[in-house]
Amino acid sequence: MTADDLGLTRGDGVFDATRTLTTAGGSTTVDDLEDHLARFARSIAGIDGPAPDLDAWRNLIDAATTAWTQPGEGMLKLMYTNGHEVTAGPPTGLLTLSRLPDHLITARDGIGVALLSRGYPSDAFADAPWLLGGVKTLSYAVNVAAAREAGRRGVDDIVFTSSDGYLLEGPTSGIVMADGDTLVTTPTGPTGILASVTVDHAMTGAAVDGVSTLTRLIRPEELSGCNGFWILNSGSGVAPILTVDSRPVPQNPAMTRQLRHWTGFAA
Amino acid sequence: MTADDLGLTRGDGVFDATRTLTTAGGSTTVDDLEDHLARFARSIAGIDGPAPDLDAWRNLIDAATTAWTQPGEGMLKLMYTNGHEVTAGPPTGLLTLSRLPDHLITARDGIGVALLSRGYPSDAFADAPWLLGGVKTLSYAVNVAAAREAGRRGVDDIVFTSSDGYLLEGPTSGIVMADGDTLVTTPTGPTGILASVTVDHAMTGAAVDGVSTLTRLIRPEELSGCNGFWILNSGSGVAPILTVDSRPVPQNPAMTRQLRHWTGFAA
Repeated sequence: MTADDLGLTRGDGVFDATRTLTTAGGSTTVDDLEDHLARFARSIAGIDGPAPDLDAWRNLIDAATTAWTQPGEGMLKLMYTNGHEVTAGPPTGLLTLSRLPDHLITARDGIGVALLSRGYPSDAFADAPWLLGGVKTLSYAVNVAAAREAGRRGVDDIVFTSSDGYLLEGPTSGIVMADGDTLVTTPTGPTGILASVTVDHAMTGAAVDGVSTLTRLIRPEELSGCNGFWILNSGSGVAPILTVDSRPVPQNPAMTRQLRHWTGFAA
Repeated sequence: MTADDLGLTRGDGVFDATRTLTTAGGSTTVDDLEDHLARFARSIAGIDGPAPDLDAWRNLIDAATTAWTQPGEGMLKLMYTNGHEVTAGPPTGLLTLSRLPDHLITARDGIGVALLSRGYPSDAFADAPWLLGGVKTLSYAVNVAAAREAGRRGVDDIVFTSSDGYLLEGPTSGIVMADGDTLVTTPTGPTGILASVTVDHAMTGAAVDGVSTLTRLIRPEELSGCNGFWILNSGSGVAPILTVDSRPVPQNPAMTRQLRHWTGFAA
């Protein structure tokens, strides 16, 4: 790649990522590949890129997973950029496959989170497509800075809040709260929240199994009386939140098991 | 650079840019190099990077400007990233030097702009360093998307507005308005606005020459009665704004000349 690639110089690109599982014999499967390819294509459209050749991507992913033989969990990442800033050239596509980071595995045992403002009101992205709400861009500097702030505060992860006082999502995850027997997640669209493949699977699985589900904004004040609170993403799967800003959150191990079942992360 | 460089995969890096001038004989000078190096160092600190070796950067810039002999205006860009995401390795530093893009040159003749919401209230960045206000990160996807939106609207550039209704800055520029005989620019800090080297030179030069200056928030409603409105950056220098959302803005060619004098862009 060139030094003037727009993915580097402007973060003018998008990505998607999902977990891989490799057997002791070296055979690799990719979680929810078609869901992630579909979201990847939507993200590319969100930055005005061309419709991707998904068969070419599938072939590239096949080549990578065939070459990858390290047993256990991995992270497959697809990246697209809008090409070059100065020199001529087509869009750039690339892929990485690596071991799943340890902190995503340990998160499954439960995490402490801090709430940090994301700066925006909860309707900032309505009628403002240039703000790239719901587009998984390479411009993740704030998400990375939030993760560093978590480290400074001695917690494992962050849940972002809107300037009007709602819980939004994590820097790399969606959120789900149990309100009594109802599973609640936060809305995409005007909030700018990314559509989480893992949250979608949880909510769909819950609905199929007769569990009540709801999409709405959540206030931090609700957490002390909730029936469980989790962050979900395609690496960790389901991470129970133990504390929010050092205050304990009610736990619901039975629902944690169900969420893992619906999302394909059962032990 | 590697496919897992954090500057690419997360936009977890910063940059700075300034104009170069090359004589017919191939000798190149760099505008305001020390100001830009100082801001570059502040940006690196803003993403928790180490203090840069500025002498090493000066040597690299010397090598680049010595090799560059194309007469006319160029754009020097310095980039720093926080290293690699998966593999081991130190932070990445790189530099590009290329011709000044034509649209930055034609902007000096005057531009039409559209106002677009940046989504944030004007105090969103107060006490929220993880939002990276004033840090010139590589995560510029929204700035690029705003530029594409300008193209769709048939205008040359954008001025961002806050969700509480103030003018902020352009995607790659600062703004200056003449309110009667007073030059007004918008405040950094809680607004998240980047400290513009070019605006700083304009305001300092104005003050030295006895012109009244003020830093405050500006409402779009003021523009119809202003005494001139400009965007300033280190590539274009001073671009008079002719229209805002298709409405004409009062012009002030005498002040345009003075601004060019103060910022080193006199013809």
